Amino acid sequence: MTRHEMIWSTNLATRAERMRASEIRELLKLLEQPDIISFAGGIPDPSLFPVDTVRQVTAGIFDDAKRAAQALQYSVSEGYLPLRQWIVAHMGRLGVACEPDNILITNGSQQGLDFLGKLLVSPGDTLLVEAPTYLGALQAFNAYEPRYDRLIPEGGNRTPASYASAAATAGGRVKAAYVVPDFANPTGETMSREARIGLLDLAEDLGIAVIEDTAYQALRYEGEDLPAILALDVARTGHIDLTRTVYCGTFSKTIAPAYRVGWVCAAKDIVAKLVLAKQAADLHSSTINQMVMHGVAVAAYDTQVIAARALYRGRRDALLAALDREMPENVTWSKPEGGLFVWATLPERFDGGELLARAIAEERIAFVPGAAFYATDTRPNTLRLNFSSPNEEKIAEGIKRLGRLIRRT
Amino acid sequence: MTRHEMIWSTNLATRAERMRASEIRELLKLLEQPDIISFAGGIPDPSLFPVDTVRQVTAGIFDDAKRAAQALQYSVSEGYLPLRQWIVAHMGRLGVACEPDNILITNGSQQGLDFLGKLLVSPGDTLLVEAPTYLGALQAFNAYEPRYDRLIPEGGNRTPASYASAAATAGGRVKAAYVVPDFANPTGETMSREARIGLLDLAEDLGIAVIEDTAYQALRYEGEDLPAILALDVARTGHIDLTRTVYCGTFSKTIAPAYRVGWVCAAKDIVAKLVLAKQAADLHSSTINQMVMHGVAVAAYDTQVIAARALYRGRRDALLAALDREMPENVTWSKPEGGLFVWATLPERFDGGELLARAIAEERIAFVPGAAFYATDTRPNTLRLNFSSPNEEKIAEGIKRLGRLIRRT
Repeated sequence: MTRHEMIWSTNLATRAERMRASEIRELLKLLEQPDIISFAGGIPDPSLFPVDTVRQVTAGIFDDAKRAAQALQYSVSEGYLPLRQWIVAHMGRLGVACEPDNILITNGSQQGLDFLGKLLVSPGDTLLVEAPTYLGALQAFNAYEPRYDRLIPEGGNRTPASYASAAATAGGRVKAAYVVPDFANPTGETMSREARIGLLDLAEDLGIAVIEDTAYQALRYEGEDLPAILALDVARTGHIDLTRTVYCGTFSKTIAPAYRVGWVCAAKDIVAKLVLAKQAADLHSSTINQMVMHGVAVAAYDTQVIAARALYRGRRDALLAALDREMPENVTWSKPEGGLFVWATLPERFDGGELLARAIAEERIAFVPGAAFYATDTRPNTLRLNFSSPNEEKIAEGIKRLGRLIRRT
Repeated sequence: MTRHEMIWSTNLATRAERMRASEIRELLKLLEQPDIISFAGGIPDPSLFPVDTVRQVTAGIFDDAKRAAQALQYSVSEGYLPLRQWIVAHMGRLGVACEPDNILITNGSQQGLDFLGKLLVSPGDTLLVEAPTYLGALQAFNAYEPRYDRLIPEGGNRTPASYASAAATAGGRVKAAYVVPDFANPTGETMSREARIGLLDLAEDLGIAVIEDTAYQALRYEGEDLPAILALDVARTGHIDLTRTVYCGTFSKTIAPAYRVGWVCAAKDIVAKLVLAKQAADLHSSTINQMVMHGVAVAAYDTQVIAARALYRGRRDALLAALDREMPENVTWSKPEGGLFVWATLPERFDGGELLARAIAEERIAFVPGAAFYATDTRPNTLRLNFSSPNEEKIAEGIKRLGRLIRRT
């Protein structure tokens, strides 16, 4: 039997295809073309990276022979204890009283999503997600063959019985609800306190987990912080070890993404099971990266957050002002209080993918067509506009070009 | 419905349990007790870590503002191109002509195993593994609910039809054969050239993949290198893109494990699908770690291998000599030409787990009971003895104590 007849070629192809997001990968390549003004990214501005602090913390580790040997050696799957202790204090400031055994270090928050898919989802089970939602979460979950049903957090959810019976009809059960409650990717929108409580009520009725992805939580530019869903869950149950919410956090947007250091915070019995998934997946996160991240967090977390907020607030303001100036009346967009994205909705005759092709060819601008972010109820007349990468001048020029393109299309 | 009635608690518990290897985790904790002479580990001796080179390479990255920004930023899922190019040259030296698109960077070789499980295995499918085999591979695969059948590489394999019909009876198909061909964990044994060719014949007949885990390949202390199974596959098919073998490599045993940098080398179409799995799992491996690993590999790979071989050869010799001196006649053990482990077989009345409890309590020595390494055909009268962590003096003393314990048990 030749390799191309192999049983597993079919498997590989089908399974891999579920995890594909080719639009995004192709778009990222565009960022390398310097004459394109790109609103397509979702990455931090590198001017914010604390290079000097990182350099000093790293040198400090290598200057101490014992710490150097520790930094280069295998370590426990749970993660580096001082970093978990720092995160315990950080979660305390967010209203979540917890202990190191409530924390697992993951490779960014993305890996937490993969593990939750792996542990929760059997083929045909249902996950509740917003429309649109974070594409990377769909990629992580898709490997485990879920069905999706639509969550409408701000007062539009169906009854628990309706979700449960739809899941049963599809041959599985509802297993979790996934949300990005603060300045969501891709919409920039934030769940109200009432919506967070409503989601916990729904999850309790359904007996499911809530997966809270907080990648952008620290990046608030106006308004007051809302409690984490996990904090509300702790408040209602009385103790983190009685909660159903799995909080997925990350340093990618506040310190630097390349270390691939994020965390899960949840009830101890859940974390213990995620630790087994971590061990099976890649043994542990990079020891040295966890030690460096701990040192940098201690030295510079708060100043990093202040600097990021100042830079991105200016860019968000520039983007919203440019949209006000340049968009035709039939275009609407979100007004995010934080995060990295604005979500624009065009008249229904538009298709984001077709518009992107013209945007690149005719105006040398890029964005992400909205269709990629929908697991259900796709609306192709939508665009995701990122404001963390282009500076204010490029934002003004790029949106001028986008307005021009939309008017003549 | 309370959290403890949650549908997903059951799922989590069952799935997580499949990935458990509690003995190993508990044993690793013993390594922290300084009065225990431990043969239980499997980790490199930290005196081999190239701390000065790592420090210089890292400083060089931070001294260049552009490289520093790159090192801290998101990067592509395939991995850092210069590192993939270095690996292409390395694979060339192993007889595998390939290109960067044949390489995916993973978090150690462990993550490659996880992705292969994810892409290949549906519940009830069969994987062919040796008895015993690498525990971490079983943990990675177990998440995907395979059945195992026994591979006996040195001339004892059943017919392809027998494997296929056993798999069909169990409700699935044979999907892959997994081997550690060089100085295997846990046995220390090496597949002959004939056994490698025989495995490719079997895989071809069954239409399955061969997963070649080469964690210890560079650590040969005597004898001549045998061709990688992937190299034999390239030779028989004429081109890497026609092969069925997936080579999982790592820098963990030659440079340092804590960076979590390994790689997969395989046909381009397979690698392209594994790249999607990587993106879904954790986006990409740490950028800075890949850049550091590239610099260290360029500067010091060969000298690292020479130093590791010299140190571990001495310890292997010490272990084999001590076993010769101290073991009763009815104990046998492997004579590894490389790697980190010797596999001992005691008379059938012994149980490795019970012996370990007495070893710790009465003799302050530790090893890994062999039962944990079996997916089929368990033999509890076996032990894995590691020789990379204890020095020669401790090896002599520890084996003296082990011999004493066995004689009186």
